[in-house]
Amino acid sequence: MSLPSKVKIVEVSPRDGLQNEKEFIATPVKIELIDRLSQAGFPNIEAVSFVSPKWVPQMADGAEVMAGIQRRPGTIYSALTPNLRGFEGALAAGIDEVVIFGAASEAFSQKNINCSIAESITRFEPVAQAAKAAGLRLRGSISCALGCPYQGETPIASVVDVARRMLALGCDEIDVADTIGVGTALRVGQVMRAVTEIVDPARISGHFHDTYGQSLANILAAMEAGISIFHSSVGGLGGCPYAKGATGNVATEDVLYMLRGLDIDTGIDLDAVVDTGQWISGHIGHKSSSRAGNALAARKAA
Amino acid sequence: MSLPSKVKIVEVSPRDGLQNEKEFIATPVKIELIDRLSQAGFPNIEAVSFVSPKWVPQMADGAEVMAGIQRRPGTIYSALTPNLRGFEGALAAGIDEVVIFGAASEAFSQKNINCSIAESITRFEPVAQAAKAAGLRLRGSISCALGCPYQGETPIASVVDVARRMLALGCDEIDVADTIGVGTALRVGQVMRAVTEIVDPARISGHFHDTYGQSLANILAAMEAGISIFHSSVGGLGGCPYAKGATGNVATEDVLYMLRGLDIDTGIDLDAVVDTGQWISGHIGHKSSSRAGNALAARKAA
Repeated sequence: MSLPSKVKIVEVSPRDGLQNEKEFIATPVKIELIDRLSQAGFPNIEAVSFVSPKWVPQMADGAEVMAGIQRRPGTIYSALTPNLRGFEGALAAGIDEVVIFGAASEAFSQKNINCSIAESITRFEPVAQAAKAAGLRLRGSISCALGCPYQGETPIASVVDVARRMLALGCDEIDVADTIGVGTALRVGQVMRAVTEIVDPARISGHFHDTYGQSLANILAAMEAGISIFHSSVGGLGGCPYAKGATGNVATEDVLYMLRGLDIDTGIDLDAVVDTGQWISGHIGHKSSSRAGNALAARKAA
Repeated sequence: MSLPSKVKIVEVSPRDGLQNEKEFIATPVKIELIDRLSQAGFPNIEAVSFVSPKWVPQMADGAEVMAGIQRRPGTIYSALTPNLRGFEGALAAGIDEVVIFGAASEAFSQKNINCSIAESITRFEPVAQAAKAAGLRLRGSISCALGCPYQGETPIASVVDVARRMLALGCDEIDVADTIGVGTALRVGQVMRAVTEIVDPARISGHFHDTYGQSLANILAAMEAGISIFHSSVGGLGGCPYAKGATGNVATEDVLYMLRGLDIDTGIDLDAVVDTGQWISGHIGHKSSSRAGNALAARKAA
């Protein structure tokens, strides 16, 4: 196995994890979550989104959350910004990185936002230009990069095409996201290797879901393809809107447990993350789906 | 990745999976489970054990179970046989393969059976000789091969030493078992490569638990080390006696889903296994812990 010596973990629980929770999570809880995560050493936290509160009411308090947190030097705080209005909100809140997004599946794009992939990405041009002008980092997220609920397996050429468009918009980092968790290790390696042909591997991240339990194997395969940035969510926060009751984002504790065993440095305190996973799971009222998190917490309690 | 083109799955749910269930599972349910599994195409099923019913009351009906199943040609039915009396029961029941076992951890051996590793394996000599004389297959299982609840990480030399002793007893197949699920991919590769130095890789199997969510990554690493036999349990049946509420054996559905994606042939019908996982989970009254199983069942229901 040829593996990186360092991995950057992007912790997505405050945004991607919480946004699917039906009950509104109080602003102070969101603030404490982000502060716990930054104190645990995460170099990048997807903290909030600036979208219409009509679409995503859970994220309506993005400005208050950002105003309430204690900034840790060395942590990049990211926000989803679907349009210029969202970007203005993010800029005012002092966000370090804005995230734009597009699907690699034509069927998904048409069904969800009623336009082609190409059109959907063109719409982000003003946001991308504004981010560059303001000196912010820009991240582009490619959803449905392994499969789509409507059209099955995603052609690798579609992923590469979206990556190329995102590069052209000036993205500093590009996420290859298996939104519905259907991908397996061989295909993940193929997709990642194809994207590394046009994007520097140091600027590509892998975003995996444990819907089919494949995330850690996929991360291993992605690392072997040269990738060293991964998204994860403490306690596995965040369900899957396409499969009720299914597991969502890969749990940060499981990823960190594996990486520690592989002697890969992340700079993150696993012990603090385990505590945070148990704490936030208690707050939102369902058991953590992190297997390593639950086992380590049980070991600590014993 | 250098992966095998074929993998043999040893389905352990009827024995390893059910034996931790507190409530007695009715004999006809056990029989139906084994029959469903053989019909799904499993080449090897760990069906029963012949141990004292005082120790493991759940397995007291081994003879009735074996008398009730429909034998499928091509399926090897295995039984745990801790002593000559158990072996006689297995032989009378028409078992194809008997399984003996020993820990790779000295602390575990002393604490659990009050003797050294070497002594514990010597005690199996009569069973091994009887199995050979009767023309049965003999499998040796090395527990705590990655870690031990009492002494932490297991030295690789201890695993190799137990493997050597089991080879000397005439074992046809040797299991490297991460009984408490603590192992991660790098170490798994190292342990497997060390064992392949003295045992033909085609005779080594990997037995992983998802206590820390690492099984699929570990299977991937083991395959890269030349291993092509793995144990799994439908619905993830079987808890972990060392961590209450923790996940047990890796779920067969998750393994098959990954192997299918890797174009690795198992000869097993994943669809039938998904149904069986949901069926048996209903019978024992707790939700399947197989992520792929639950996601595929939800997809089917939709």
